[in-house]
Amino acid sequence: MLQGKILVAQGGGPTAVINQSVVGVVQEAKKLAGVTNVYGALHGVSGILKEDFLDLSLESNANLEAVAATPCAALGSTRDKPDTAYCKEIFKVLKAHKIGTFYYIGGNDSSDALHTLGEEARKAKYALNCIHIPKTIDNDLMINDHTPGYPSAAKFVASAFAGVNQDNAALPGVYVGVVMGRHAGFLTAASAAARRFETDGPHLIYCPERTFDMDAFTADVKEIYNRIGRCVVAVSEGIHDSEGAPIVTKLAKEVEKDAHGNVQLSGTGALADLLTGQIKQKSDIKRVRGDTFGYLQRSFLGCVSDVDASEARAVGEKAVLFANAGNRKGTVTIHRVGKYAVEYRLSPLEAVAGKTKVMADEFINEAGNDVTGRFMRYVKPLLGTGGLPPVARFDPANTVGKVLAKKKAPAKKKALAKKKKQARS
Amino acid sequence: MLQGKILVAQGGGPTAVINQSVVGVVQEAKKLAGVTNVYGALHGVSGILKEDFLDLSLESNANLEAVAATPCAALGSTRDKPDTAYCKEIFKVLKAHKIGTFYYIGGNDSSDALHTLGEEARKAKYALNCIHIPKTIDNDLMINDHTPGYPSAAKFVASAFAGVNQDNAALPGVYVGVVMGRHAGFLTAASAAARRFETDGPHLIYCPERTFDMDAFTADVKEIYNRIGRCVVAVSEGIHDSEGAPIVTKLAKEVEKDAHGNVQLSGTGALADLLTGQIKQKSDIKRVRGDTFGYLQRSFLGCVSDVDASEARAVGEKAVLFANAGNRKGTVTIHRVGKYAVEYRLSPLEAVAGKTKVMADEFINEAGNDVTGRFMRYVKPLLGTGGLPPVARFDPANTVGKVLAKKKAPAKKKALAKKKKQARS
Repeated sequence: MLQGKILVAQGGGPTAVINQSVVGVVQEAKKLAGVTNVYGALHGVSGILKEDFLDLSLESNANLEAVAATPCAALGSTRDKPDTAYCKEIFKVLKAHKIGTFYYIGGNDSSDALHTLGEEARKAKYALNCIHIPKTIDNDLMINDHTPGYPSAAKFVASAFAGVNQDNAALPGVYVGVVMGRHAGFLTAASAAARRFETDGPHLIYCPERTFDMDAFTADVKEIYNRIGRCVVAVSEGIHDSEGAPIVTKLAKEVEKDAHGNVQLSGTGALADLLTGQIKQKSDIKRVRGDTFGYLQRSFLGCVSDVDASEARAVGEKAVLFANAGNRKGTVTIHRVGKYAVEYRLSPLEAVAGKTKVMADEFINEAGNDVTGRFMRYVKPLLGTGGLPPVARFDPANTVGKVLAKKKAPAKKKALAKKKKQARS
Repeated sequence: MLQGKILVAQGGGPTAVINQSVVGVVQEAKKLAGVTNVYGALHGVSGILKEDFLDLSLESNANLEAVAATPCAALGSTRDKPDTAYCKEIFKVLKAHKIGTFYYIGGNDSSDALHTLGEEARKAKYALNCIHIPKTIDNDLMINDHTPGYPSAAKFVASAFAGVNQDNAALPGVYVGVVMGRHAGFLTAASAAARRFETDGPHLIYCPERTFDMDAFTADVKEIYNRIGRCVVAVSEGIHDSEGAPIVTKLAKEVEKDAHGNVQLSGTGALADLLTGQIKQKSDIKRVRGDTFGYLQRSFLGCVSDVDASEARAVGEKAVLFANAGNRKGTVTIHRVGKYAVEYRLSPLEAVAGKTKVMADEFINEAGNDVTGRFMRYVKPLLGTGGLPPVARFDPANTVGKVLAKKKAPAKKKALAKKKKQARS
């Protein structure tokens, strides 16, 4: 049975539904007689050090629900990864505030941080329940069928590509859209859900699970362009060469690295500019444009999958229920059952901490430039009960017969007949 | 009275609601007994040359409505600007198909093209009704209070900034979002509608109506960052120096120019990268990120202002009604009446053709780094009857008292007292 004060915090990159999980913890904990307060730490573990807590038990129900529907981490987030000394400071604060249960909502870095905290607590003989609640738009947590945050980001990416596909059809050329994803291509792959009609883009999709070859890329683009007169491309920010070096480093001499030694991929348009530059150089295609979807993918207001929202709420609630049932640590995981339903389990922290799941081979086509039908069956239920807004076109069957061209037709027919004859010979 | 076949086409950059105007023309024309067919030309004036027509009168009502709700030009668009020779070819086709009325949906380039076509028709004694139907996300057509397409793009920009403001609050730093708009800052200014709470971004807004000074910009950013610990900036792609040279040209040695001699501003992340680079260089702020919103602003699926959708429909319908009432040429214009209602008039083509409206001085603050309350009153009704989705935060009043810091307080108090003493001396 959960007792006394419990604490919840958010870590890593925000998502459109991460606040649902906080509110899930608060609402479920409020049902338990033994829980006196639910504290929220501001900016993840860094807020614990500073004793920056809000008492979320004092929030009105209406405001809790309004925050739940607001994108991005309402408690603030952090990229801090605690070491032994950091953990000791955390214990001092938790002890001072009499907190024995900590819910940390985050991705694999956050689960790793929680794992470290749990181990240090054990060594220090500090009684601490550590429950990790999953979220990441990258969808790269092990064991999980998918992670809260991914479906809404996938809906954003699919909606963006459905739109730019229309735009590219109206003003034909080549369009390259760069999507978030350092190691896992799930989000880039979701762009395929934008397609409705046969010639709809994205026509090419490149994920970081496969080596990116610049020559193959430009050849692919030219082939599509020559065939249908336009080409829409979805590319992961994390695409890399055969030695694992990010393609974006081919352009920039100086690249920014974060605390984990990762090259900065988001917050710059360099990769899109590099790729469109290559197409311009290696073809005579005139209209070549590139966009980097950037932070809008995880924060845009009003683009939420209802499936995602309810699952993000559920993992918060389940985290409380698992701890209340006597579990001391673990991570809540999502498992798909039947055609599309999910069940939630508590899995060992070690199974997800610091590990990265990437796309299964069967989700990417052999040429490495598209997704498969299996991926489509995987991703479609996640986009929400309504799916994407509809896309329609005028019926091409209603084409009006040419009047002037008809008059000129004999000459054209002759030329065509001549061409056919030559082809046969 | 309108008779026989009428033709409709779309020109320039697509918008989220431009198909509403096509469908407005079709649905209104179908009510008129004298109209036999409504043709749609594919890819604007260039489709007329090629006799690429669809008979839109053959579309089912359901599909017309589905296309109306789909973003971007369903008939395709063009950047072609017809000259005398081009016009003569157009007349040949119109004559062959017995078309006497042409509705061209577009911005100031399209109205200019229609103006040229009308003049050439007069010289050639070819009887042609030329009605221009306004659309542009830039909102830069003269006479009009605003133009169809702008409100939905403004809603996108405001929704994007409402999201990235949350994201930036969760992981503090500097964020620069680059918004479309070569000469007019209306779309960038709409970012201000993202603000809800006192410290919400965007904290700085730069429009092309004012000269952009790099030193003032970096000083502004540092001032905000030092004061509130983070800074969100909205910048028009068209910002320029005192000689009118686009800021983006300061970075790129080679810049792409279009048929009108305009430097390519969209479809590249160069400006955002240039501005974030400057902030990194001139400050010690660690987290500096930039996004370029790109083509999503005019095409994103599912981000439509209902006010915009109904007005875009209305300008199509009115264009048919004005011609049916005997008007031979002109442009449909939107005028605001009362607190927020609109009326539609037929204005002379010359008044909008090839001209550009920019933001009124009273819409931009004196420092040139924000909008005014007058602009907010102008833009808010356009975003739709529901406005933006709500944004909520946890109540900062529920801050928990510090326990450890309290214990250390005496030492801190002493230091503070010492500091104050020094300050006084």
